[in-house]
Amino acid sequence: MMQAHFKIFYRQYKEKINKKLDFLIPNKSVYPGLIHEAMRYSLFAGGKRLRPVLCLAAYNIIKDDYDKALCVACSLECIHTYSLIHDDLPCMDDDDYRRGMPTCHKKFGEAIAVLAGDALLTAAFKAACDFEDISEIKQIIEELSDCAGSAGLVGGQVMDILSENKKIDISALEYIHEHKTGKLILSSVRLGAICAGAEKKELEAFSGYAKQLGLAFQISDDLLDVIGNAEEMGKNIGQDEKLNKATYPLLYGVDKTKKILDSTVDKACAYLDCFRDKGWFLKKLARFVAERNN
Amino acid sequence: MMQAHFKIFYRQYKEKINKKLDFLIPNKSVYPGLIHEAMRYSLFAGGKRLRPVLCLAAYNIIKDDYDKALCVACSLECIHTYSLIHDDLPCMDDDDYRRGMPTCHKKFGEAIAVLAGDALLTAAFKAACDFEDISEIKQIIEELSDCAGSAGLVGGQVMDILSENKKIDISALEYIHEHKTGKLILSSVRLGAICAGAEKKELEAFSGYAKQLGLAFQISDDLLDVIGNAEEMGKNIGQDEKLNKATYPLLYGVDKTKKILDSTVDKACAYLDCFRDKGWFLKKLARFVAERNN
Repeated sequence: MMQAHFKIFYRQYKEKINKKLDFLIPNKSVYPGLIHEAMRYSLFAGGKRLRPVLCLAAYNIIKDDYDKALCVACSLECIHTYSLIHDDLPCMDDDDYRRGMPTCHKKFGEAIAVLAGDALLTAAFKAACDFEDISEIKQIIEELSDCAGSAGLVGGQVMDILSENKKIDISALEYIHEHKTGKLILSSVRLGAICAGAEKKELEAFSGYAKQLGLAFQISDDLLDVIGNAEEMGKNIGQDEKLNKATYPLLYGVDKTKKILDSTVDKACAYLDCFRDKGWFLKKLARFVAERNN
Repeated sequence: MMQAHFKIFYRQYKEKINKKLDFLIPNKSVYPGLIHEAMRYSLFAGGKRLRPVLCLAAYNIIKDDYDKALCVACSLECIHTYSLIHDDLPCMDDDDYRRGMPTCHKKFGEAIAVLAGDALLTAAFKAACDFEDISEIKQIIEELSDCAGSAGLVGGQVMDILSENKKIDISALEYIHEHKTGKLILSSVRLGAICAGAEKKELEAFSGYAKQLGLAFQISDDLLDVIGNAEEMGKNIGQDEKLNKATYPLLYGVDKTKKILDSTVDKACAYLDCFRDKGWFLKKLARFVAERNN
């Protein structure tokens, strides 16, 4: 019953997000068509919309009219997609496939892929400005910029690249995870709460949840690279080991990693107890993230 | 006398801009140091700071306290530098030198160069949020995003890349110039005026000036590639012809191009007559742009 409920809500969020993204990003009939085609190719490649869903769900715990946060939710998906496009480039992780489809640079060439990422990052800031309470826009843009910039996503990717083919310790590994995946997940939840006008204490609870969720996400990602199914994943598995990347299974082994994952999800959910029944969706979402197969 | 005055004012603006940029972008002691080193390498490579100077000078025509617009002025320089870093990449224009120094990817490698550009673009939006009147931030961010995104800078670069080694007509050439260089120059002037609370009619005059200035900038850039001095330019000349790029000298010849440039500067200056004496600096700046040798 809870499971069915969860899926219905998730689908509803996702449909609204896709509709808004479709509205925000011009289609290929808008000149120059190729750049919009490339942006939309990656943006509508079948992503889970996890970050915008987190944003809307967090908003929904405080207030009902979550449509108002859609523009901010979509800005998070634009930032996420831009980072995937740039991470996949030959000079970065050099990935040919993502979600079972050729990566943006494989389909459109490197130059257009770099520019499509740039344009999505730029579009994210404009989308976030659509939030109707203009007194909040400063805080929203700052949160987005901090999570995406050199102290966030970019910082994580820098350290990930520098640590390839090197033995790194657990603190370096944690830095990479926290910044490459964690910060955007954290800001997704926080921005939903900020848009809804959450109080300081509530915002702290949301942040606590989101930090553990980000960690769970990365641990399960590492696990999938070892025990996942290449077909369901839509990309090559075993890449991390091949690149000699530091991962949880490599450091702790598969069994202990699974236990760490379970307790991380428990910790995430505990932060939501202060919201009583209203926390159910985000709790379920944490399990969903830990147990996903792609 | 006017000339000396102009230089003193320009230097003052530039010093304030450099100081603010130094404050805004972390140095290499901030983890991860390499990304900040790369960002600062390109940001402090001896640029003319034309765009932020335009922003401050436009502000200064309306109001005296131009320090208030410094954060927005610096965001324009961050966007300009990001676009240079990405344009120089091997998959784009593949330039080894800029301002007499190795380009960012030559110095730090492609991955770090892509990320340094990304981080500068991201930092630009945060810097602009520092503007003290928060009711203006929505308009400022939208102007920045529009001039940088697929309808601005990125759109121009896309068409520039797609037109390489192809014969293109004058309207395609104008699209590239207007978007690759023109839009950011236009927004630089407009944002200065917007920050100073310019009235609609004033903003139109500023926009008229800036559009002609952007055109003059590109025409003189084309000329420099034909008749410039490689040493003063700090980069290879004759690149446009080698790449078979459409340029004004290629379409009209050098002499006619010089005449077009002169009349474009005249048109730019005429827009400033409504500001009487106060327009002197921006008028002088238009001549400076047309007659620069690098």
